[in-house]
Formats: sequence, C-alpha cells, structure tokens
Amino acid sequence: MENLAGSLKAMRNGNNIDILITGGILLTMSDSMEVIENPAIGIRDGKILFVDTNYDPQSNPYNAGEVIDAAESIVMPGLINTHTHLPMTCFRGLADDIPLKDWLDNYIFPAESKHLNKDTAYYGAMLAIGEMILSGTTTFCDGYFFENSVAQAAKDTGMRAVCCQGFVDFPAPDNPDSASNIQIAESFIASWHDVSSLISPALFCHAPYTCSPKTLRDIKQVARNSKTFFLTHLSETISEVEELKQQYGNTPVRHLHSLGILDDFTIAVHCNFVDEDEIKMLADCGVKVSHNPESSMKLGAGVAPVPAMLKQGVIVGLGTDGCASNNDLDLLLEMDTAAKIHKLKTMDPTVMDAATVLRMATIDGAKLLGLEDKTGSIEVGKCADIIILDTNKPHLTPMYNCYSHIVYAASGSDISISIIDGKIIMKDRRLLNMDILDIMDRVRKIASNIGNH
Amino acid sequence: MENLAGSLKAMRNGNNIDILITGGILLTMSDSMEVIENPAIGIRDGKILFVDTNYDPQSNPYNAGEVIDAAESIVMPGLINTHTHLPMTCFRGLADDIPLKDWLDNYIFPAESKHLNKDTAYYGAMLAIGEMILSGTTTFCDGYFFENSVAQAAKDTGMRAVCCQGFVDFPAPDNPDSASNIQIAESFIASWHDVSSLISPALFCHAPYTCSPKTLRDIKQVARNSKTFFLTHLSETISEVEELKQQYGNTPVRHLHSLGILDDFTIAVHCNFVDEDEIKMLADCGVKVSHNPESSMKLGAGVAPVPAMLKQGVIVGLGTDGCASNNDLDLLLEMDTAAKIHKLKTMDPTVMDAATVLRMATIDGAKLLGLEDKTGSIEVGKCADIIILDTNKPHLTPMYNCYSHIVYAASGSDISISIIDGKIIMKDRRLLNMDILDIMDRVRKIASNIGNH
Repeated sequence: MENLAGSLKAMRNGNNIDILITGGILLTMSDSMEVIENPAIGIRDGKILFVDTNYDPQSNPYNAGEVIDAAESIVMPGLINTHTHLPMTCFRGLADDIPLKDWLDNYIFPAESKHLNKDTAYYGAMLAIGEMILSGTTTFCDGYFFENSVAQAAKDTGMRAVCCQGFVDFPAPDNPDSASNIQIAESFIASWHDVSSLISPALFCHAPYTCSPKTLRDIKQVARNSKTFFLTHLSETISEVEELKQQYGNTPVRHLHSLGILDDFTIAVHCNFVDEDEIKMLADCGVKVSHNPESSMKLGAGVAPVPAMLKQGVIVGLGTDGCASNNDLDLLLEMDTAAKIHKLKTMDPTVMDAATVLRMATIDGAKLLGLEDKTGSIEVGKCADIIILDTNKPHLTPMYNCYSHIVYAASGSDISISIIDGKIIMKDRRLLNMDILDIMDRVRKIASNIGNH
Repeated sequence: MENLAGSLKAMRNGNNIDILITGGILLTMSDSMEVIENPAIGIRDGKILFVDTNYDPQSNPYNAGEVIDAAESIVMPGLINTHTHLPMTCFRGLADDIPLKDWLDNYIFPAESKHLNKDTAYYGAMLAIGEMILSGTTTFCDGYFFENSVAQAAKDTGMRAVCCQGFVDFPAPDNPDSASNIQIAESFIASWHDVSSLISPALFCHAPYTCSPKTLRDIKQVARNSKTFFLTHLSETISEVEELKQQYGNTPVRHLHSLGILDDFTIAVHCNFVDEDEIKMLADCGVKVSHNPESSMKLGAGVAPVPAMLKQGVIVGLGTDGCASNNDLDLLLEMDTAAKIHKLKTMDPTVMDAATVLRMATIDGAKLLGLEDKTGSIEVGKCADIIILDTNKPHLTPMYNCYSHIVYAASGSDISISIIDGKIIMKDRRLLNMDILDIMDRVRKIASNIGNH
C-alpha cells in the first residue's frame, strides 16, 4: 500500500505502466482487509506496482498503456477455485439426481473410459477455462486424467493453475496399467516444472477407496521428492467412511495419517465426515481442505464442518468440483451456497459471514495452494490477478456492504473485466485469449458422441 | 397443443398474430411435461393461439407482428415467485449474518418504521420488478405494507401479480392503529378487485407471533368474504414454534388450525418445522406452501420437509422471500438451491430432481396462486407468459438435459426475452416498460437516507 509519496516514487522510477485501474471500491483482501474507495492501481510487468488512495484523475501522473475506469464497480482479487476437474464439462448434465456411486460407476467412469482422450480433455478444459474466466476465477487447482491437456489449456489461455495428474488403481483412460504410476507421476512433474511461472504441476490420488495404500504412498513420495502438492478426495460420503473402516479398520483421515500421507503439502478435498479429533489431526499436520459445498449437496453426500475447521486453524479454500456434479464452475454462486449452508447446518446465522467466505475464495485459496506470495490479494509486489465486478445493475442496487453483495447477490455474469498476471484476458464479457465459439462447437461434437453411446 | 391441422385452423381464423416464436426447445410444463424441439408458438391478444411441432420456417403461414427466433434457446413458461416482499430491495444487504429476531427487531422493523412510505415502497417495488423480469420471473406473490404501491408498480410494468396487503399487531408503517385492520383490508381488496386482469389483491398476516388470534381471524374473514387468498409466514424458526407452544399451547400449524384459518385459500410460507401430522393437516385442508430455501438458510432458520409434503399431495411453490434475506430475487438460483438442499437434508440425491423443482417454479406456483388456468405452462388458450433462455453460452455447453441446465447451471442473467400476457417486456436484457436507471438512482437515494440513520 502506498500513498502520494509512493506515487511520486513510482513516477521517479519511471511513470510508464501497463495498466492503470481507477475508481470504484477496492477490496484488497489483505490481512487487514483494507477497503479503499476511489483507488488507483498501477500494474507493470505483471505485478502490482502501487495501490494509491484518494486518486485524483485530474492530476494523473502515470503514463499507462491502458486505463480501466472502475467507477460503479468493485475491484477485487481474482477468485481461486481450489478443486475442479475441468474436462468434465464434456459430461455437464449427463447424469443428475442420482447417488455418487451410481453416478461414478454407471455414468462417469464408463464415459471417461470411452470418450476421454488427450483431445477431448483439452477442449473440455478450454471450455471450462472460458467459463471460469467469465465468472471471475483467475486461478484453479485441477485434478484429472490427461492432465497434460489441462496444463496445456491453462498455458494457452494465460490462466494461473495448479495441475494435478490423477491416479486410480483400476485402468485409467490415460494409464491402463497402474504399475506405471510412479513413472507417469515423475514424468508429469518434470514436464511442467519449468514451463511457466503460472503453472505448477502436482499429483492427485482420486480417493482412498480407489487407490491402494501402495498407490497413495508411491504418489505421495513422488510429490515429496519434487516438493509438489498431493491432492486427494477424502471422507466425501458416509459410505466411504464405512468402507474404509471395514477394509482398513480406520476412518479415511486416520487411514491417510497412518500411511504418513498427511502433511502441509497435502490438500484434502471435501472432508464432509470428520470428527473433532480428525480436524485436529488435519490442523496439526498442516493439511489444507478444499470445501465444495454445491457438489456435495447435489450428490447428497454431506457438508464439511468448516466453521469447526476454521476454529482449529485449518486453511480452507473453496472449490466447485467438476461441473458434472455442480453443474457450473461459478465461484460467486459457490460462495453464496457456502455462506448459507453452514448457517443452516449450525442453526447459527452468524457463522461464515460474507467476508470470511470471500477470504476462502481469494487469499485463503492462495494459501491453500502455496501461492499467497503471488495472488489472492491486491497488494504491492504481488502478481496482478484482478477482477472487476460491475455493480451498476438492478440486483446489486443499493449497496450497503460490498462483501454481502459479492457473496449473496452477485453471480459470475457480473464480472466485467478479468486480469491475470497483469494481462487483460476478459473485457466486457469477451474472452480475449480464445475462440470460445469454436471451443463450444468442439465440445458439442464430443457430447453428441457421448450421448449416442 | 395443436398440429398442422391446428395451424390451418389458425390460418382460417385469421392468420394475423401478434408474436410468433420459432425454434429452440420448448418445455411446455404441461401435465405430460411435453418437450418440443423446433416449435412454433403463436400469440394473439395476450393468449397462446397455437403450439406447433416440426415448424418449417420456409412455409410460414403466419403473418406475425413480431417474429422471435429462439434457436439455441430454451422456451419455457415464465417463472412464478410465490413469496417476496418487493420494497425490501431498499434494505438489500443492510444487515446480514445475524439471527432472524435481531435482524427483524434491530434492523428491518426500525428501518421500515422510519423509511418506508408510499413512495419508497413504490420505487423499491419497481426495482424489484426490474430485477425479477431480468431473471425470468413473470408472476409474483408479494406481501408487505403499502401494498397499494406494490400493486401500482405491477400495473405500471405489466407484471402478473398477487398483491397481499400486510398486517401486524404493532403499529405498522402504513397503519398506526391495528383497530383499522378490517377496514384497511376491505378497502385494499375493493380498490384492486377489478383494476387489471393481471393483478389479484389478497391479504397477508405477518405471522402468528406478530398477529393475535383476533387479527388472524379478522383478516381471514375478510379474505373469505372476498374469495381472496390469505397468506402468512408459518413455522419459520424453532423459536417461533417454542413461543407459540408457550403462548397458545400449540405449534404454529395447529394454532392456525384451531383458529379455523387453514383452507384452500391459505398460503403458508416457510413451514420449516412441521411434523408428519401437520403436513397431513395442511394437505387435508388444501393449504398451499411457499418454499423459500435461501432465505431460511441465510437466517439459520431451517429447511422445510418439501419431499414429505409433495408425497402427501401438498402443492408447494418456490419463493425468494424479500431480497434483504436472500439477497437477490433470482428464481433460477433459488431452484438450484431447492434441488440441492433437500438432497443434502435427506442424504438422497434422487429427491427433488430437476424437473420436479422446475414444476415448483412454474405450474405448481400457478396452482398455488389459483392461476393455473392463466399461467405456469405453455398450452393453447393460456395467457402468454413466456421466457426464453439463451443456451449458447460456455456454462450451458454442452446440453444433455434441459431441466438439469435450467436448475443446476443457468442463472437469471441467461434470460434473453420475457413476455407477459402476450407483451414483450424484456428483450436482449433491456427492460422495455421502465426506466431502470432512474429507478436505481431513486433507490440509491432512499438507501443513502437509511444508511445515515
């Protein structure tokens, strides 16, 4: 945060900047949750160069390549989707209103086996990225098969991403023989390690009920060796808990703990069924939790005890899950659900207030992914991952409280501009880095094949 | 439903029509849930004149004043919001993340007392109507003070509405002395009885904890005398249940039953806490239930046992509640929540499937309001209350199932055209019957007064 002196310093250091954003209300999402009316934000070389208060456009000292007028808007950090399976856009709405096991065994796994390949994964991911950018997401963490295709799509579109190559014990669409797991994991990490400052490779074991202890340990070991994240679905349904108790004599969290999997480079997705001791176990080990309320509601799975997790200091981020179980990738709508479902579950309307939920979708998501030095808040020196939300709309009028508006009234379609790493990638609802109509056509063709089988 | 013979008959009877909608996929929401690809819908004098299948645009026999191309769209009945308090747009986001009693006693009731008047209620209602039309609602049922202003706003904008004048026992903003209740009720009904075929007057007692048995009986009697609906909040929170048990020795539903209030012209809103016997009581009496899941979640109130109600034959419609406890009036998002919350509550992902939920927001809402002969489905002879949802968007691609798309993936901003009573009132996201920017400015001024007090 800088003031007039900072601006002058910026001038002295060269007043050419790439982008100047002026006006509106800035939610920094910094530790102090500073809110600035009528700010000026300067961006140069992908970074936030300054954040000035009380900006006077009459005496603009900056020579900006592009000036963005954010009047009647909220300026905020780009949203962070901590868990999704992007290529599943190909299966959006393929099978709804059925239980998780039926959904997986009779629809999703067969469709993946028949129709998922390098190309369908790429176009599905491109479509998902288009949808995410249009709804305010600037960083995602994905876990799926053919993750090379997802990483390529992120690279081609300029998204910030943690891409986790997926593993299961049965023959996977991109790996018929799980004996090759370690090799595939190492090769994936090596391929993407140094490709782009925006893309971090990582590894994803589908779940402790689809991965043996050996697979879990093997993949975690590769992750440890390469200092990358290990992601897994964990304790999503009560039947998973029962199954693991029968098979291993332990609940899912305790099972992973006994295998030595849980550490601060572990991201556990869902955690709908965890008791106080397990929450303490997650907190003590530094495990991060990705909370995906809409998917878990839709599958009738459960709802994670997030307020209790936050109390014990667990870092919790927000995710949409794959859009086949949601059925969209809109984090603004996910925030609304996250804020409301815990009020209902605890019968306490004061829990998960709007600001807490927005933190989960921004700075806490960044912390979850180890990206808090780069993104998640608007502060000098961080990468410029910024979205602008147009509040000059009937459903966002009047405005007493920005946080409430974002969480309870806005939706993804209110995002007017999206900037990632200092580059404008969406403006006035148009995606600048992809031919989205072509992508939509390609995914429709993929879907028509799926629908015919 | 008519076929080619019907079209020819329409021609013989004069082939001039006001509007012809062609292409896309039509969800009729008729009893048989007929879905028609590439339909042609003719509208004349506010009514649906024909619905043709297999429309061939090359041999168009109709001379239409306006032709709407619905290619790459879903054509469906306008949505029906069975419970809201429109002027509360003035209080949107004024106080969030607090309990219902605190919210009412310390924020909403004082703000209503100080700032609600004929004019603020009118402009608040106008803003709400703008928001509702933009998100696909064509019929609403409102209950509030200064209901004349709400009815006037509906009349001025061409919305279909059931407008319920509100009553409480303490001094109300529009009625300082509850001794005048009967007179005000009779006068309201008389004023609006014959004004417009689109507007039905009705009466609203706030709740059994804010209205004495005498008030409830008096207002119900006026409603009975005039054959109009009687609406009340009922069994919204567990503390309401406890309070009524203490005061009257009865749960809210049984209390109203003992007062002789419950009949098929009674609409009970919320019903979050009702046991099987009470559901049977509601069903036997023909009471309709308005289900408002988002508001009840946000206030930490509870969730109505809707699947059990449907099983016993209770007619259940969907509502957003006032936008101060939601915080929007978007029924598409409300459908998503309604479908998901019951899957979670019952741990059964098969309950409240997408088609069932869409029925609640269309034809069942019409039945709830006694308007099923006019609206709620697209059938020959009904009034033309029709919306068109643009599916040519990333988040609605691909499309396997229309119902899933509407409930789980679409939001209000996907509505491209809205027709009420055969008149186009919104096209390409522009409201044709109101100066929405002026309305927004007026409500911002009202809000700045509220914020300063």
